[in-house]
Amino acid sequence: MIKPLGDRVVLQAIEKEEKTASGIVLPETAKEKPQEGEVVAVGTGRYENGQKVELEVKQGDRVIFSKYAGTEVKVGETEYLILRESDILAVLD
Amino acid sequence: MIKPLGDRVVLQAIEKEEKTASGIVLPETAKEKPQEGEVVAVGTGRYENGQKVELEVKQGDRVIFSKYAGTEVKVGETEYLILRESDILAVLD
Amino acid sequence: MIKPLGDRVVLQAIEKEEKTASGIVLPETAKEKPQEGEVVAVGTGRYENGQKVELEVKQGDRVIFSKYAGTEVKVGETEYLILRESDILAVLD
Amino acid sequence: MIKPLGDRVVLQAIEKEEKTASGIVLPETAKEKPQEGEVVAVGTGRYENGQKVELEVKQGDRVIFSKYAGTEVKVGETEYLILRESDILAVLD
Amino acid sequence: MIKPLGDRVVLQAIEKEEKTASGIVLPETAKEKPQEGEVVAVGTGRYENGQKVELEVKQGDRVIFSKYAGTEVKVGETEYLILRESDILAVLD
Amino acid sequence: MIKPLGDRVVLQAIEKEEKTASGIVLPETAKEKPQEGEVVAVGTGRYENGQKVELEVKQGDRVIFSKYAGTEVKVGETEYLILRESDILAVLD
Amino acid sequence: MIKPLGDRVVLQAIEKEEKTASGIVLPETAKEKPQEGEVVAVGTGRYENGQKVELEVKQGDRVIFSKYAGTEVKVGETEYLILRESDILAVLD
Repeated sequence: MIKPLGDRVVLQAIEKEEKTASGIVLPETAKEKPQEGEVVAVGTGRYENGQKVELEVKQGDRVIFSKYAGTEVKVGETEYLILRESDILAVLD
Repeated sequence: MIKPLGDRVVLQAIEKEEKTASGIVLPETAKEKPQEGEVVAVGTGRYENGQKVELEVKQGDRVIFSKYAGTEVKVGETEYLILRESDILAVLD
Repeated sequence: MIKPLGDRVVLQAIEKEEKTASGIVLPETAKEKPQEGEVVAVGTGRYENGQKVELEVKQGDRVIFSKYAGTEVKVGETEYLILRESDILAVLD
Repeated sequence: MIKPLGDRVVLQAIEKEEKTASGIVLPETAKEKPQEGEVVAVGTGRYENGQKVELEVKQGDRVIFSKYAGTEVKVGETEYLILRESDILAVLD
Repeated sequence: MIKPLGDRVVLQAIEKEEKTASGIVLPETAKEKPQEGEVVAVGTGRYENGQKVELEVKQGDRVIFSKYAGTEVKVGETEYLILRESDILAVLD
Repeated sequence: MIKPLGDRVVLQAIEKEEKTASGIVLPETAKEKPQEGEVVAVGTGRYENGQKVELEVKQGDRVIFSKYAGTEVKVGETEYLILRESDILAVLD
Repeated sequence: MIKPLGDRVVLQAIEKEEKTASGIVLPETAKEKPQEGEVVAVGTGRYENGQKVELEVKQGDRVIFSKYAGTEVKVGETEYLILRESDILAVLD
């Protein structure tokens, strides 16, 4: 299990199947860096003026995040992205 | 539905029909980057000295924002702009 | 109506009729960027240590501001400048 | 009258009559940028941790300031320098 | 014994035995900089708004950290990495 | 008299008579920039979290300061250095 | 005596006798910049949210510090390094 610290969030990026107008599935390289992902685990929260405040996102949320944010890590065979909650722009529900 | 986090706002940019003095509608490329938009959703607020403070803008407000602010995202077929409230300059009413 | 947010101020720049010593009115390009303007609208204030504090300038004040501050916007046919109060140096009365 | 905002100060620079060792008065261009001036007006103060604090300098004080600080403005025929109190180094009495 | 100060943590990096798909163990130079390590000692904590707050990680935790963070030091024959807790991304349990 | 503002200190640099090993007194240019000086006057203090706190150094203290800190000013025939207390490293007694 | 101000610490660097694998003592130039030293004197502390807090290190502590931190000064014939406590990574006991 991977437990993020403080205001960090662990998510798995969701590759968007990108097809050109004419239906061709884009090769890996040409694809836009993914901006959507599913939250796997959230940190214990961050401090606001000395008070510990919970994070807004929850495990299982589908989120949109800043394209080049966070650090890619591999645990076993699984690729994760660890980023700060402030790099998450919105929740899609 | 797209729910922005914290002090972020989701809006849809309003393309200004730009005509030159002689009435020619400008092509996409030559157009100024839009600076007006309509608020679609607002975040839960931001912290000021440990207190959570609501955002000033509301859903449906027509606003002016800094030209190069925010992140463009596409959800389904719709283009949105997600930016921080501090990038919104004024409300037009 | 254009309502600025937070600590922002909307003003209309006052072009200074600039004449060279010999009385020639300077062409637009050669003119110094205006630094004087009249306040059209003020934001709701800014936070100081969690307290909302009103802005010092008022609608109708004639002010001096930092030359390259703010964002120029056009609403209808009128040109405005939207800047933060901290870019206003002094009030002329 | 020119009323500076917040922690700003308006002063008039005092040109130091600069003579080389051999007594030649330096031409305008070669002169060191003035660092002395007289305070014409002071702002209403600045915030320290939510409390408004008065400025230390008073109208009429002769002060030393950082050479390249502030903004030069002309009101009528008079040249002023508007700078923040933190750019004033000391008072000469 | 090596006692880190404040919000710092001392850890020993864990070299990941990196084999290419075809099973060749990578030479030192080609290896990715390690991102996993075991916590050897933790600092006394950091200040949040005047209150001393304990660190989240404990001695013996296996952690993932930012690749180029911290300072490598050698005490006797042992290599350690000293970094700030904010450079640790997550705990692996 | 020269009265520094806030957390500033006025001092007179002490030129160290620098001799090479073989006893040659270094010429002005080759000399290291002085780092020692005597405090002539101290400011009224600085704010820490809204409280005004006195400076640690006193008039007459012999101090070591960061080499390139502060502003050189001349009052009458005397050269002074005005710097912030945070640029003073230690007191020599 | 040399008394550091605020959160500063005075220490004497400990040169590590560096021998190559084959036992050759490294010449001065090739040596790594020292990272170990002994604390000679500590400052009166630093402010955290308006409260004065003592430093963690004590006189006589053997410490590890960031390689290029601090300022080298010479008092009489002795070389000292004056740095901020935040540049000290750990205490060796």
